[in-house]
Amino acid sequence: MSRRIRRTPYTDRVEQAGVRGFSVVNHMLLPKAFQTTVEQDYWHLREHVQLWDVSCQRQVQITGPDASTLVQWMTPRNIARAKVGDCFYIPIIDAQGGLINDPVMLKLAEDCFWLSIADSDVLLYAMGLALGRGWDVEVSEPDVSPLAIQGPKAEDLLAGLFGAHIRDMGFFKYGWIDFQGTKQLIARSGYSRQGGFEIYLNGGHLGPALWDAIWDAGQAHRITPGCPNLIERIEGGLLSYGNEFTRENNPFEIGHGKFCVIDGSIDYVGRAALQNIAANGVAREIRGVKFDGGPCPTCSKPWPVMVGDTRVGQITSAIWSPRLKCNVGQSMIDRGFWDAGQSVTVHAQDGTVRSGHVSLLPFA
Amino acid sequence: MSRRIRRTPYTDRVEQAGVRGFSVVNHMLLPKAFQTTVEQDYWHLREHVQLWDVSCQRQVQITGPDASTLVQWMTPRNIARAKVGDCFYIPIIDAQGGLINDPVMLKLAEDCFWLSIADSDVLLYAMGLALGRGWDVEVSEPDVSPLAIQGPKAEDLLAGLFGAHIRDMGFFKYGWIDFQGTKQLIARSGYSRQGGFEIYLNGGHLGPALWDAIWDAGQAHRITPGCPNLIERIEGGLLSYGNEFTRENNPFEIGHGKFCVIDGSIDYVGRAALQNIAANGVAREIRGVKFDGGPCPTCSKPWPVMVGDTRVGQITSAIWSPRLKCNVGQSMIDRGFWDAGQSVTVHAQDGTVRSGHVSLLPFA
Repeated sequence: MSRRIRRTPYTDRVEQAGVRGFSVVNHMLLPKAFQTTVEQDYWHLREHVQLWDVSCQRQVQITGPDASTLVQWMTPRNIARAKVGDCFYIPIIDAQGGLINDPVMLKLAEDCFWLSIADSDVLLYAMGLALGRGWDVEVSEPDVSPLAIQGPKAEDLLAGLFGAHIRDMGFFKYGWIDFQGTKQLIARSGYSRQGGFEIYLNGGHLGPALWDAIWDAGQAHRITPGCPNLIERIEGGLLSYGNEFTRENNPFEIGHGKFCVIDGSIDYVGRAALQNIAANGVAREIRGVKFDGGPCPTCSKPWPVMVGDTRVGQITSAIWSPRLKCNVGQSMIDRGFWDAGQSVTVHAQDGTVRSGHVSLLPFA
Repeated sequence: MSRRIRRTPYTDRVEQAGVRGFSVVNHMLLPKAFQTTVEQDYWHLREHVQLWDVSCQRQVQITGPDASTLVQWMTPRNIARAKVGDCFYIPIIDAQGGLINDPVMLKLAEDCFWLSIADSDVLLYAMGLALGRGWDVEVSEPDVSPLAIQGPKAEDLLAGLFGAHIRDMGFFKYGWIDFQGTKQLIARSGYSRQGGFEIYLNGGHLGPALWDAIWDAGQAHRITPGCPNLIERIEGGLLSYGNEFTRENNPFEIGHGKFCVIDGSIDYVGRAALQNIAANGVAREIRGVKFDGGPCPTCSKPWPVMVGDTRVGQITSAIWSPRLKCNVGQSMIDRGFWDAGQSVTVHAQDGTVRSGHVSLLPFA
């Protein structure tokens, strides 16, 4: 622990709640585990509500006359279709089409955007592009620290606390709540498939008070502290930048071709590369793999996926699913082997070889 | 542990050597502790030799016809003075003069540079600048994983293993060694003041073999596994990006004005800002603080440094020095209070208030 790995406005509270470990995302602490097991947390998340410190989802704020030009140049998705109040999932790619990040873009005004980023310094990339082009923008990291409220009881909890108007908010839309005399952004979003919201707290000094307010109101809803749950994430087909995909992958490989405008109507870094990939088709795609052999170890390096003696892909995240009664993995699988039902063997890092088959994501 | 936080070519060996914890730098594991205490490691490092996995010092490789133009645009230091074979410490700054990183630049050829970076994605920044300007360069992260051999016996150990020619290498110069039929870069450098070398291993598959070769030869020199030592680093005045300085700081504040060309003879991002800062003087500077009260806690957030009721600075790294018999901290101290000998109080994060005084770095 050092200052370099930044604490969040909620870290004191997370420690009081009994956090047992952290990961690091965007040079900031992300809680990894509390007093309960991943499996206990999984069932709880599906039934109740959890409070997650996801401050590490830092905002890259881009403002100014050229803001929309810069954001558009960073992504193959047509951001002109976003309205104020929209959250847009936007792949960010390099000149070869390789993924640099996959943030959620919040359009705050015609000339103001937040990119809520995964684990890479998009701020430096955006700043470099802007300096290189000489565009009139300001690129900064505001004092904004997202707090996620996830699970089926999140809506009741927050409607009671902040007003029934949040019930009318659509998925991947944002609105506003009042908190202690401040106006705070709230989006219906989050890194789970169980429903919920993220409050983009503006003003870190309010962190403990916001945590406490939700914690106290959540007692009636059996709230617990939590964090992104690996079982739920893998089952739900939620990908993780740096795990399932890196700069070695393009958006088509991870099923995000639908976000890529390749008809030449918009200009962005990597357009020619994406057009070329689209014309030729991809060599591999993201898939699920179900495999047996009892609960698998932690996947901290890619596991070969084999068909006979041929390596046909790799698993990058895997865990035992107590609901599906098998191991589930997210993987990149080569063309010719990626059809659902394809038999494979999985070579886990504990030396075990397990039989399995390819499936679609999310897992049924 | 997940794939997102990358293992290194030496991680298997580090685990076999009994690593007790890791930090994360550049999305990669950095060992933090082994079986011995920080104090035991400190004395050992001053007397013998240690093997450190510093693969997290990733290389940003910049090649092509415009490579030197791009690198120069990123730093206020005049890189034209670097010859092939030189290591140059180069601050990288933004348009306001704020520090983005402080890598060591290795000039491999007139059109090929490695930037051996601290903890921020310089690759994305360089790529953004190059794309924005349309420069003809390739920016990449090669398969290069530095392994540090630090301590007074490093030279004898490596001369025995790789040849006496390494004895002739000057500080912050690099040369070449043969290893298993490959040519590998070796520099006289490292994140300690005890002397030593860093081998920039090109080809991760050779990692375990290189570790083993040095480990075996090192037995005669009492080699141990190690990592940057906090006591030695603080005493030695070695700063850490993200701890002692961030984008909130400029090179003058951390004593690196000597690397900044502000006479207008070279062009780089942030030049006007640095000229302005140089003309007006800085408001704060890096200093040491010695303080009492017995061994202090870990510094994971800035500690106020006070003179009476006035906050005059902050400590960002601190530890008990068994040699100096007091706590030593690295700090940023406001003008008017930064003279050596200034009496201060230190407000540590365990609630203790300790008396101390300002000193120069490195600590005597």
